[in-house]
Amino acid sequence: MAYERESFEALVERMKSYLGEKKYVQARDTILDLEPVDIAYIMETLPEETIPIVFRLLPKELAAEVFVELDTDSQENLIKGFSKSELKEVVDELYLDDVVDIIEEMPANVVRRILASADSDTRRDINNILQYPESSTGSIMTTEYIDLKKDMTVEDAFKKIRRIGQDMETINVMYIVDPQRHLIGFVSIRTLLLADESDTMEEIMDRTVISANTLDDQEETARKFEKYDFLTMPVVDKEGRLVGIVTIDDALDVLVEETTEDIERMAAISPSYKPYLNTGVMETVKSRIPWLLLLMISATFTGQIISSFEDALAAVTVLNAYIPMLMDTGGNSGSQASVTVIRGISLDEITLKDIFKVIWKEIRVAVIVGAILACCNFAKLMLIDKMLFHNPITVQVALVICLTLIVTVFAAKLVGCTLPILAKALGFDPAVMASPFITTIVDAISLLIYFQFATMILHL
Amino acid sequence: MAYERESFEALVERMKSYLGEKKYVQARDTILDLEPVDIAYIMETLPEETIPIVFRLLPKELAAEVFVELDTDSQENLIKGFSKSELKEVVDELYLDDVVDIIEEMPANVVRRILASADSDTRRDINNILQYPESSTGSIMTTEYIDLKKDMTVEDAFKKIRRIGQDMETINVMYIVDPQRHLIGFVSIRTLLLADESDTMEEIMDRTVISANTLDDQEETARKFEKYDFLTMPVVDKEGRLVGIVTIDDALDVLVEETTEDIERMAAISPSYKPYLNTGVMETVKSRIPWLLLLMISATFTGQIISSFEDALAAVTVLNAYIPMLMDTGGNSGSQASVTVIRGISLDEITLKDIFKVIWKEIRVAVIVGAILACCNFAKLMLIDKMLFHNPITVQVALVICLTLIVTVFAAKLVGCTLPILAKALGFDPAVMASPFITTIVDAISLLIYFQFATMILHL
Repeated sequence: MAYERESFEALVERMKSYLGEKKYVQARDTILDLEPVDIAYIMETLPEETIPIVFRLLPKELAAEVFVELDTDSQENLIKGFSKSELKEVVDELYLDDVVDIIEEMPANVVRRILASADSDTRRDINNILQYPESSTGSIMTTEYIDLKKDMTVEDAFKKIRRIGQDMETINVMYIVDPQRHLIGFVSIRTLLLADESDTMEEIMDRTVISANTLDDQEETARKFEKYDFLTMPVVDKEGRLVGIVTIDDALDVLVEETTEDIERMAAISPSYKPYLNTGVMETVKSRIPWLLLLMISATFTGQIISSFEDALAAVTVLNAYIPMLMDTGGNSGSQASVTVIRGISLDEITLKDIFKVIWKEIRVAVIVGAILACCNFAKLMLIDKMLFHNPITVQVALVICLTLIVTVFAAKLVGCTLPILAKALGFDPAVMASPFITTIVDAISLLIYFQFATMILHL
Repeated sequence: MAYERESFEALVERMKSYLGEKKYVQARDTILDLEPVDIAYIMETLPEETIPIVFRLLPKELAAEVFVELDTDSQENLIKGFSKSELKEVVDELYLDDVVDIIEEMPANVVRRILASADSDTRRDINNILQYPESSTGSIMTTEYIDLKKDMTVEDAFKKIRRIGQDMETINVMYIVDPQRHLIGFVSIRTLLLADESDTMEEIMDRTVISANTLDDQEETARKFEKYDFLTMPVVDKEGRLVGIVTIDDALDVLVEETTEDIERMAAISPSYKPYLNTGVMETVKSRIPWLLLLMISATFTGQIISSFEDALAAVTVLNAYIPMLMDTGGNSGSQASVTVIRGISLDEITLKDIFKVIWKEIRVAVIVGAILACCNFAKLMLIDKMLFHNPITVQVALVICLTLIVTVFAAKLVGCTLPILAKALGFDPAVMASPFITTIVDAISLLIYFQFATMILHL
């Protein structure tokens, strides 16, 4: 049954009163049937000092599942309060990749305690995964998978699954390796169930197995899950030997995180990788100030352009009033193009070889959009601004504004669609080439065009 | 084995020459071992007239899998060329939810042919799913799942799985229903494998099963996959009866599509739900022009503000040169706040009740960011603009600019963080409240503040 947020709040209230009256059994039963992530949410909403109490009320296995879902601070506090045997119990119950995720967030002294409580096999595996670069596929994989040898029968396979399946992250797919541990195929649990008991893995396995390399970028691997509809994907080392698997829940987390990173970059924010409400004020300042400063300083150009046309502006002061509209429309047109292209690159729909197709499309779009905007604006200038507001607008002035609009939209779409593709080709993150960056460039372009037309048509 | 794009192009060339020389067996063997989505990619890269030839070379089951991955135009052309029995074969092989997806994209005459070729059970199921609203959970579910009765034994369950498992989308999770088909629990294939043959479903099933309702929004359901790490999720009707399941591959597609929609809305584009390169020029124009027009017309305000301060600007012409910088910095500060908050709302990290927490955080961020920007800008004005470029800047003018900067950043962050939350509370899409919209508001605010400070400090 799915609980709504409202009933969560009712649950929290009930928990509070049970805990206040030390009715621990009732408190446990209140949350026992919930999903781990929901129990974690409720625990974090309760007063901090009750978290260890509630945690100890939970059955061992559920407690470990809840632990994974808690935020880093709560995890750290719990670990600090654990006895040695409590910590060992939790670490034993957790999936290996979750332990690694937790370790990556913890301070060094806590990490030492966790590693000390793990058995030597687990410790070796943890250290192995920890050595992969931060955003590599190796860093998100787990070593808890089932591998089978090619001469095993279906009966052997089921024996192995029944023996070790409980502790593996998935038993949906088993991977087949040769004696040197090279990955040579896979069988799904469905294939196994439908096969004869005496069939060997070699007979029933699927040999077209797509794998990732430990050093592949984690986003690239996650996008493969999306493209191929995988639930798990094997990870091999440089020699093609099976070293781990990635499961779709971790791939999905990577996709969400990378998309947030893209969106933040597009809004001129350095990614923080933390939920908004968990980020400190100074952290937020640090992620926002560099781009603001850079873009503020870049605006020196637009300022200098305006200064150098001061006399023209003084002669026809009404021109001044349309600078914001021209700059904003240019900026908006440009970011429409850049953001669409950036998203297309992220989703692997647009690559460098498409650049001329993209440019040709944006040119046609720009001409039509520019023409429509210019016509509407001309009508608005003559009917509203001139007749209604009595602004001193002549047909020549309206012409200067509308021609600028057309050329600005054209330039903005062109800059907006090419820069992200070029950034990608040069190895930069295309998301940086979004609205704020494009706006700054387009501002300068639109002003130059504006004053050019003004000089020509109004003979300034 | 994963093929790189380069080797895809080599494959396409080989296919072309094989097909040209009518070496069909070699052509088939070239692509037989690839993933369906990759075969589809290669087929679409080949000349259009060869698509039906290649399609008919593929084994039946693989052909159906490839068919799903082709783009709508190729699918339509293939269907039009199919004989009745060919069409029936493809429809029989496809998963039901894929048939529904295809039907939703096809013109009416093609839909009639598809429905006519399906057997009556399939036709009923298709029509059932088609009746759900476009972005509801019902519209993305499939009816090909395994349900078990509570008094079935593990042995019975395996018999049923072996009998019908081949045609089901997943056998990872089986759902348990009572005689009235109410959903009462689930068992995973792992639980079944580890249980005794004589255990009944009632004894081993997990009763805490989170389900979606057919009419729930598809994005809401997809977010639950992310939150709970599900691979499949049962869908029930109003009475709690099991009617279908959603699988994670479809949930993932929804997440990607909804995120693209958010990103497009944030850049003032109406969502198109199609890859960039497949969208026609007029479609793109239509998705971009409404917002551009609206925002262009809104800029009338900023124009009027500048007009009404024309005399002040004429008296101290240097003020003009800093309008773009102030407007851009305001716009960028505002969109940093709005985009972060919009993403937080999308990921369910921020809700209406957090509004004061958000505002309080943004106020503190704004004060610090504003102060840093103002100090840097003051230094830049006096050192670069005045001493290097010899702009006529007095300490008073620098003060006007820097004070405006502080207040603008403050106002921009405040507007930027509140509008998306309010939009959400009022039932609008918060993504609309991103950069372009915020920029238009902040432009007007920053100009008003600028002229206010100028009047006060420069006594204009």
